[in-house]
Amino acid sequence: MLSAEIIAIGSELLTPEKTDTNSLWLTGRLNDIGIEVKLKTVVGDDGERLQETVKDALSRSEVVITTGGLGPTADDITREFTARAVGRDLVYHPEIEDWLRERFRRWGREMPEINKTQAFIIDGADVLPNPHGSASGMFLAMDGRILAVLPGPPRENQPMFSDHVFPRLKEIAGDVYVSRRVLRVAGMGESAVDEIAAPIYSAASDVQTSILFNRTEVEIHIAAQAGSFAAAADASNSLAEKLADALGDAVFSTNGDTMEEVVGTLLRERGETISVAESCTGGLIGRRLTEVPGSSDYFLEGAITYSNEAKVRVLGVSPDTLDRHGAVSRECALEMAEGMRRASGTDHSLSVTGIAGPGGGSDEKPVGTVYIGYSGPAGTHSREISLPGDRYLIRWRASQSALDLLRRRLLSA
Amino acid sequence: MLSAEIIAIGSELLTPEKTDTNSLWLTGRLNDIGIEVKLKTVVGDDGERLQETVKDALSRSEVVITTGGLGPTADDITREFTARAVGRDLVYHPEIEDWLRERFRRWGREMPEINKTQAFIIDGADVLPNPHGSASGMFLAMDGRILAVLPGPPRENQPMFSDHVFPRLKEIAGDVYVSRRVLRVAGMGESAVDEIAAPIYSAASDVQTSILFNRTEVEIHIAAQAGSFAAAADASNSLAEKLADALGDAVFSTNGDTMEEVVGTLLRERGETISVAESCTGGLIGRRLTEVPGSSDYFLEGAITYSNEAKVRVLGVSPDTLDRHGAVSRECALEMAEGMRRASGTDHSLSVTGIAGPGGGSDEKPVGTVYIGYSGPAGTHSREISLPGDRYLIRWRASQSALDLLRRRLLSA
Repeated sequence: MLSAEIIAIGSELLTPEKTDTNSLWLTGRLNDIGIEVKLKTVVGDDGERLQETVKDALSRSEVVITTGGLGPTADDITREFTARAVGRDLVYHPEIEDWLRERFRRWGREMPEINKTQAFIIDGADVLPNPHGSASGMFLAMDGRILAVLPGPPRENQPMFSDHVFPRLKEIAGDVYVSRRVLRVAGMGESAVDEIAAPIYSAASDVQTSILFNRTEVEIHIAAQAGSFAAAADASNSLAEKLADALGDAVFSTNGDTMEEVVGTLLRERGETISVAESCTGGLIGRRLTEVPGSSDYFLEGAITYSNEAKVRVLGVSPDTLDRHGAVSRECALEMAEGMRRASGTDHSLSVTGIAGPGGGSDEKPVGTVYIGYSGPAGTHSREISLPGDRYLIRWRASQSALDLLRRRLLSA
Repeated sequence: MLSAEIIAIGSELLTPEKTDTNSLWLTGRLNDIGIEVKLKTVVGDDGERLQETVKDALSRSEVVITTGGLGPTADDITREFTARAVGRDLVYHPEIEDWLRERFRRWGREMPEINKTQAFIIDGADVLPNPHGSASGMFLAMDGRILAVLPGPPRENQPMFSDHVFPRLKEIAGDVYVSRRVLRVAGMGESAVDEIAAPIYSAASDVQTSILFNRTEVEIHIAAQAGSFAAAADASNSLAEKLADALGDAVFSTNGDTMEEVVGTLLRERGETISVAESCTGGLIGRRLTEVPGSSDYFLEGAITYSNEAKVRVLGVSPDTLDRHGAVSRECALEMAEGMRRASGTDHSLSVTGIAGPGGGSDEKPVGTVYIGYSGPAGTHSREISLPGDRYLIRWRASQSALDLLRRRLLSA
């Protein structure tokens, strides 16, 4: 089995606020072809340490991948010091400069002279094109070792890795096949999931299983490795099916789809439409639904009715309801969903009203109190939930609960 | 300035799902006393690599901190291989074993014999007590270098660091004070900012400056270190002011505030209100504005008018405008903003309509074409922009441009 090291470059990754996360995705892809990550390093904009780190990594591991530090400014040191680490020169590539100038022209700008540094590549390395940014990557094979130098932004390094590094590594790694499945669960806690899942996955000792608690979702990650793709897929699929059966409709995704993708697929299959009326989530549910390409086929509109006046005028919530029950109430949530459906003419409507905090809570309705409303062909429905966490998490969890309620309604219809 | 390295130990930290986060908190505490983290490593349960990593770290940096791998089982290798890295033996401490046996007794259990390994400490190291777990830490000062060996769980390593490592390091670091400033810039690219900023920050060689490109914003991080807090603050403030002057109103924040916080503060100061009409951003601007606690004081409502029908019915966009210019047009953006302001009665309204992709682009209006509209007391205004990136980034950048347009309007009013 080949071993790899990942080196993340950039002083910002050595601050208390930021850490390297690129390596997580890269590790997953490397594991897919049986390459194990043995060490990860984060190094700042510090040439000497970078050079030493790359050199050490190449002395220990067959595959070394760096991310970041390929920008045009003076603190982008990766080109220079990876070249030094392998004892080679940087070579000027006029075709990269041409491409850069053209790229800037397309956005109506002149290329700043400083960007010319991005046309320098380690001698003998393959140039890896970057359709999403100005930094080209490099792929160097020497002395039985591989050095791949990638840009830092995930949107640049992930496609570059997939298109140009992965195929080359796959060839070297040979016939190792890993099949992964991810189950996503909503509406159940981590320990509750584990209590049901543990007896099942413990019996499948040849498959690696881990349970992760990821913000508002519990994820079950399954990885099976074998000498053929069919054997690996059989093992992972068989375990995934058993777990999905045991956990029932709490499992909302067995193929990695997000909640908004799952809901979108259900709506599209049915040829039905959705609108949302949001108070405390402030647009988050709309944003999540419309993050999915093509969502205009089923998402028609939303109302962010933060003020009471807007709830009355836009959604037709009755002033009497607001007086008697307050804007954060089951009654208001129901009227919001009904009013949204009436105004928009969509098949389904969701609403959310609640107290995201940190202020605004009371003894009766503390921070985290959220009402979710639903209106659809089979009638209306609402739920009160109490969500833990800070403002950000309460809003996220409220959006997840609302989308999950819609999902369950669509499945039961 | 002392430099530090942090080594996180554990094979689970080399999977696609988990990464080291202990180092973030530790970095903050180290920075507070002027100790800079120069390198971070994640190493698995792999003795040889751990030994080499610790040895290399001690050869480069004055302070080396390890976290994790101090449990009692066979894959907890930190004790053995940190000892080898410094060329010392492990010494049995009977008082630790007594404490461990007592600890287990308190929970009504016998100490498993395997836990005896936790009574072994590097020769010459101070034992760091752990009130929250069974793993004692170690603190070793040798040859002008410090090695601190801490357990992995944050609720064990954080109090241990605070109580026993921090005070010792503070004494060594002496009277070092650090003052930090962050400037955030909108509407300018990284290289354009650097071209203006570099001559200024290069002249202040006593202050560390780095330019980060963070999604849609460029950030300038400034850190000054001095023997007194006043001197450090003077140095960082003076550079921050010079940079802010040179970059003008592209600098939207000099105190770390986000764009939505800056806009919120401006609205609150003026006692004015805002509403938003969103098409391609689908609720993102509303979500961002309402992420700020207390935003209900100035954010009244939003309309997510994804369908043309909603643009007409909710915002009063004229069907004729949609026919003649399309929903993605300057004219539609203006009517959306005006209609939103009219309906909501807010002082200001923003609108966004555009093509976020991946589908929907044409030769005339390719993916990334976005129109931003504004309506306010001093009239209406709109902008066409061409945004690079994928769907996610185009939407984010559109929201940032819209909020920045509002900010500039508020400042010029």
